[in-house]
Amino acid sequence: MSSSIGTLFRVTTFGESHGRAIGCIVDGCPARIPLSPDDIQTQLNRRRPGASALSTPRQETDAVTILSGVERGLTLGTPIGLSIPNADTRPADYAEMEAIPRPSHADFTYAEKYGMRARSGGGRASARETAARVAAGAIAEKMLAAFHPVEIVAWVEAAGDILAQRPDLGAVTRATVDASPARCPDPAAAPRIVAAIESARDRGDSIGGVIACVCRGVPAGWGEPVFDKLTAQLARAMMSIPATRGFEVGAGFAAARMRGSEHNDPFTARPGGGIRPASNHCGGIQGGISNGEEIFFRVAFKPVSTISLPQSTAAFDGTPVTFEAKGRHDPCVLPRAVPVVEAMAALVLGDAFLHQQIQLMPRPAAARPENSP
Amino acid sequence: MSSSIGTLFRVTTFGESHGRAIGCIVDGCPARIPLSPDDIQTQLNRRRPGASALSTPRQETDAVTILSGVERGLTLGTPIGLSIPNADTRPADYAEMEAIPRPSHADFTYAEKYGMRARSGGGRASARETAARVAAGAIAEKMLAAFHPVEIVAWVEAAGDILAQRPDLGAVTRATVDASPARCPDPAAAPRIVAAIESARDRGDSIGGVIACVCRGVPAGWGEPVFDKLTAQLARAMMSIPATRGFEVGAGFAAARMRGSEHNDPFTARPGGGIRPASNHCGGIQGGISNGEEIFFRVAFKPVSTISLPQSTAAFDGTPVTFEAKGRHDPCVLPRAVPVVEAMAALVLGDAFLHQQIQLMPRPAAARPENSP
Amino acid sequence: MSSSIGTLFRVTTFGESHGRAIGCIVDGCPARIPLSPDDIQTQLNRRRPGASALSTPRQETDAVTILSGVERGLTLGTPIGLSIPNADTRPADYAEMEAIPRPSHADFTYAEKYGMRARSGGGRASARETAARVAAGAIAEKMLAAFHPVEIVAWVEAAGDILAQRPDLGAVTRATVDASPARCPDPAAAPRIVAAIESARDRGDSIGGVIACVCRGVPAGWGEPVFDKLTAQLARAMMSIPATRGFEVGAGFAAARMRGSEHNDPFTARPGGGIRPASNHCGGIQGGISNGEEIFFRVAFKPVSTISLPQSTAAFDGTPVTFEAKGRHDPCVLPRAVPVVEAMAALVLGDAFLHQQIQLMPRPAAARPENSP
Amino acid sequence: MSSSIGTLFRVTTFGESHGRAIGCIVDGCPARIPLSPDDIQTQLNRRRPGASALSTPRQETDAVTILSGVERGLTLGTPIGLSIPNADTRPADYAEMEAIPRPSHADFTYAEKYGMRARSGGGRASARETAARVAAGAIAEKMLAAFHPVEIVAWVEAAGDILAQRPDLGAVTRATVDASPARCPDPAAAPRIVAAIESARDRGDSIGGVIACVCRGVPAGWGEPVFDKLTAQLARAMMSIPATRGFEVGAGFAAARMRGSEHNDPFTARPGGGIRPASNHCGGIQGGISNGEEIFFRVAFKPVSTISLPQSTAAFDGTPVTFEAKGRHDPCVLPRAVPVVEAMAALVLGDAFLHQQIQLMPRPAAARPENSP
Repeated sequence: MSSSIGTLFRVTTFGESHGRAIGCIVDGCPARIPLSPDDIQTQLNRRRPGASALSTPRQETDAVTILSGVERGLTLGTPIGLSIPNADTRPADYAEMEAIPRPSHADFTYAEKYGMRARSGGGRASARETAARVAAGAIAEKMLAAFHPVEIVAWVEAAGDILAQRPDLGAVTRATVDASPARCPDPAAAPRIVAAIESARDRGDSIGGVIACVCRGVPAGWGEPVFDKLTAQLARAMMSIPATRGFEVGAGFAAARMRGSEHNDPFTARPGGGIRPASNHCGGIQGGISNGEEIFFRVAFKPVSTISLPQSTAAFDGTPVTFEAKGRHDPCVLPRAVPVVEAMAALVLGDAFLHQQIQLMPRPAAARPENSP
Repeated sequence: MSSSIGTLFRVTTFGESHGRAIGCIVDGCPARIPLSPDDIQTQLNRRRPGASALSTPRQETDAVTILSGVERGLTLGTPIGLSIPNADTRPADYAEMEAIPRPSHADFTYAEKYGMRARSGGGRASARETAARVAAGAIAEKMLAAFHPVEIVAWVEAAGDILAQRPDLGAVTRATVDASPARCPDPAAAPRIVAAIESARDRGDSIGGVIACVCRGVPAGWGEPVFDKLTAQLARAMMSIPATRGFEVGAGFAAARMRGSEHNDPFTARPGGGIRPASNHCGGIQGGISNGEEIFFRVAFKPVSTISLPQSTAAFDGTPVTFEAKGRHDPCVLPRAVPVVEAMAALVLGDAFLHQQIQLMPRPAAARPENSP
Repeated sequence: MSSSIGTLFRVTTFGESHGRAIGCIVDGCPARIPLSPDDIQTQLNRRRPGASALSTPRQETDAVTILSGVERGLTLGTPIGLSIPNADTRPADYAEMEAIPRPSHADFTYAEKYGMRARSGGGRASARETAARVAAGAIAEKMLAAFHPVEIVAWVEAAGDILAQRPDLGAVTRATVDASPARCPDPAAAPRIVAAIESARDRGDSIGGVIACVCRGVPAGWGEPVFDKLTAQLARAMMSIPATRGFEVGAGFAAARMRGSEHNDPFTARPGGGIRPASNHCGGIQGGISNGEEIFFRVAFKPVSTISLPQSTAAFDGTPVTFEAKGRHDPCVLPRAVPVVEAMAALVLGDAFLHQQIQLMPRPAAARPENSP
Repeated sequence: MSSSIGTLFRVTTFGESHGRAIGCIVDGCPARIPLSPDDIQTQLNRRRPGASALSTPRQETDAVTILSGVERGLTLGTPIGLSIPNADTRPADYAEMEAIPRPSHADFTYAEKYGMRARSGGGRASARETAARVAAGAIAEKMLAAFHPVEIVAWVEAAGDILAQRPDLGAVTRATVDASPARCPDPAAAPRIVAAIESARDRGDSIGGVIACVCRGVPAGWGEPVFDKLTAQLARAMMSIPATRGFEVGAGFAAARMRGSEHNDPFTARPGGGIRPASNHCGGIQGGISNGEEIFFRVAFKPVSTISLPQSTAAFDGTPVTFEAKGRHDPCVLPRAVPVVEAMAALVLGDAFLHQQIQLMPRPAAARPENSP
């Protein structure tokens, strides 16, 4: 179980890496939202393999088919079924793995959990599953855009030992991110990241890194107290992406070393009335609820587990073996994970947006509170 | 909404900081689990305020009453209702705050979300709500203990600028953690952390820090693929604790700087048959599923927002004000947050444990797969 | 598990019949709804035992305490905790039942399910649990009333062999229902029902009956397609009430004997524009969605299982026994079940109302569909 | 929303009647269950249109494709994606309906709810959606069969004015049901039902009826107390089927006219030890939990709304019109609804079965209760 995320904007995905198709059902998208296959394909193309020399040579056009829920370019309010074929599958590449669990893959834990596992590729644990997320996230973005000028932009902020300079959070765009195959908007760091990825590939090794993400245009009030804080939901969404190892929001782990007098975000008058925070150490979320400022968070990715360097490990039966991975794979997932991070952010924000409608219902004057601020 | 966590072991909490009571309903605990009020009170006492010179002077005995679901010392399989009175409430302390949102608190975002907010204290955003979590977590631990020798131990690993040495993950116990009021098992760092907290208190300031946690005795196979990975659920649970800013598992953010050949955990024969990972960079979870090794994660806490130092901020109406907090508060939440982290881990593991029963159902030989490893 | 109902207006109940207290948490009620204990107590008083000669002599004032979620007479948007003490418990009355499962009670099935059961009374299976539902339903009614003039009125339409005449669905009120202790608004049938209940009581026997319910003022558009049709949700809610055996909506089982040309509800112009159904065989719900007409349904209740007549049955160990129930009980649950039916209807409508807000969100002209009717 | 049913065995459907495809995702089916497309196709063939002279002439082979979750004939424990193409769509048949809501269809309520609706056919409200349910139900049956000899058999018990004799609940099979195109196992009533359906078709009218269903082999203990009683879940599942108007279990509405001394099911010793109910007025469910006897319930279906007889109704804009339906349709849904009722029962039982595993977990002797019966 667990193939679903969201309560009101609810996405359920299906599909193994080397099965017939992957896809998802998006249930809860309101009616009358403009939606075309191109809206989805654009983000899928940013994620699909084979698009740059930095990624796996597996060839997938990832052409999405909308099976339901849309008519004459508008959503019907009914579930949107999406299907993406698996075209370039090579189960034979994985024959050896029936006996040998790949180190740091999910082969071992799936076998322990289910008493069996998909024969070829990572099955559900493969990053291929994230294509369905990207498709669903594109729909969430379309929905959000129909009501709020929400912009979600992620980029590679670190790869291996290279830490890029943070861009202007108010200005960075997907176009500036995509200017380099490294998906890093720092023009100094981007070529170094490209070189680091190529070097890892050439050595048969892999590297990890950090993706940063900003969400602009989110009004104050999204997110729910206690267990569904926006921070908690973003953390869950990001840590559900394969290969993630850490999540931080605002000042993040650095906040742990700050004093309250230093970290606190005081308020200031907002031109036109009311107030807003004068600084943003909290990353746009306070008490789990958006405060109207830019939402900012970072996600740590481990290095890709599939490497062609020989590894001393053991087969399922305990026999010591030297394992050299044969399947096609990325030496660094970071560039292709950028749209996945954006998609997961869109899914969380889409759900939070719908939840907040309940507090925004127009109501008769009689019910107006005296104790509102 | 959102006061619930868990699908099969499901906890729903209620209560404002300065209302009549707080509490929760634990639904889904199996029948015939031994449970007494003392089982719960022990962990509540570790969290309750006023227990050490490092914490808020608010006096709460946090005496829990079991309202339902238990008879003659055994759970009935029915919902367990728990109530904890709010004894030492001082709403008058909060009179000023009706007009002034405290910097970096949830006063502003709650007002934006709901069009109103609780008059006194942080309402639901107060850390007082975590007492209900600790109570529920104690029940989850009792349930787990009836089936598996699961041990969950958290401790303060960093506070302000002080980084403690990591204890032996296989040996650290709650007793060794509680030996110092800092709840840090490093005897060298503990007194320095105590001094740092006292210094912050004396200056009217606050500090943050990092809590680390190990879960021992979790068998392989817990956690669900895709959106309910154990990593994702732990991240959500931890980031739902007030004041958290970051979460990392295993090597965490440091993994982002490692090479695959360095980070990968190869397998080795297990004495008695089968295999196990020879190293544990992944923190006991691979592909979102426990691998039988120690689960290890860290949680970053920001410095407490309530400080008595004067802060230049603005009232709800935009008027510039200098704000000096009057309510009682902790200069550092870390020591008291230790049992909260343990409780949230117990809730996640309890739910994952119940989910895994479905794969473990005994089944006829005919259904035995040929393609299991 | 399963002590929760509703997705957005979510109620979770707790409490055994002879335990310390019963109660519930209502999570998801929007902020700024006027709510006082009296709003809840009024409906609780209609359900409580001992209020008429027709009901069990168990004395319970059922005085509700609001533990959280309300301040200065308005909801806060946070979970509303409610507690109702069990005052008049007599576990000794149930001593004999430890060895003997009462016929047609849940004693046997709870023991089979859990491997144990509550010692005294019906535990969770007792109709006492419904007090928490009535309390929650009263809150749902207050919420609905803040936005729509929804009126929910249930009554006893049949008891034993007596079938009352159906009142004017547009005019029947709780006051006319409560005019007789039978809670039947047909002045001819009401005294006959009273006599039938008294006769059953005097014979040590019990009778069943049918409760009918109308919901007025529900606008068109509430309810969700497919699995959460309003009919499906009402059916589930009603069939979750103890002792229910059947549910029908609109023409109900009688529809099964009608021809399409007879049962169909054609449309007619509505004064002021648009259309409305000219007849209402469907009971106000078409395709699972409210059509703006009166919602009408009926619920069948079996005769109370607890009778003092001697019954030839068997103990848990198979020993044949003659069982004569000693506990206090109602000879007919129908009159007291009327507010329970109303409460469950209110919970379903409250949740459906909140869901429909998502389709009602104001949106820019650009998104207006060309293919709307 | 609402396209999902089940918590542990969770089905989410998608697809409009005249869109590209319909289908579903089955999430939560345990690993290692044998499953082939034929297992699903067999039940789909019983539901598909065009198979008998009694049904719509729409031609659909309803050939199912398993997209994921199954490998080498066994389930993987991962989501099972199913797709069924819509082959014989004729949107032109529905052109007239853009302006005219069909009486007693969901055209009007969908338009009110969503502010738009699918152009052709009933969209999600069409009974075509039930093909996905039948496919999912077949998987639930396969899962159940791997653990328990559960048999689910439904049949037409009444159609129009004809009430068939009830078969032996312990012996009726799908084969005896399918012996007549009426799907009525009473050899005297079956030809009369066939004639009644043909007569309705020839007159351009339609008839309704009642489907009865028995579930054999369900052990005691399935179903959850309070809101997820097995009765409540069955009621919701059945009342979510298009055209249903009523549900009753065991003695049903007739129980409302019985005395307690008459309706109660006393216990008797079971050969080999323990007890069982000596009669089954409750329909195999007590307190919402299965008691090990045959589960029996009935579902009322209204006559089909689509009739070719002229109907005086109004267009969306209020203009009076005479409407004669042109699309292809069944004069009576009952025979084709039989496998749908079976499928919904299988989904409810499948979910209840998985839930009950939690109570059945083996546990150490120390936790064994003293107060079990």
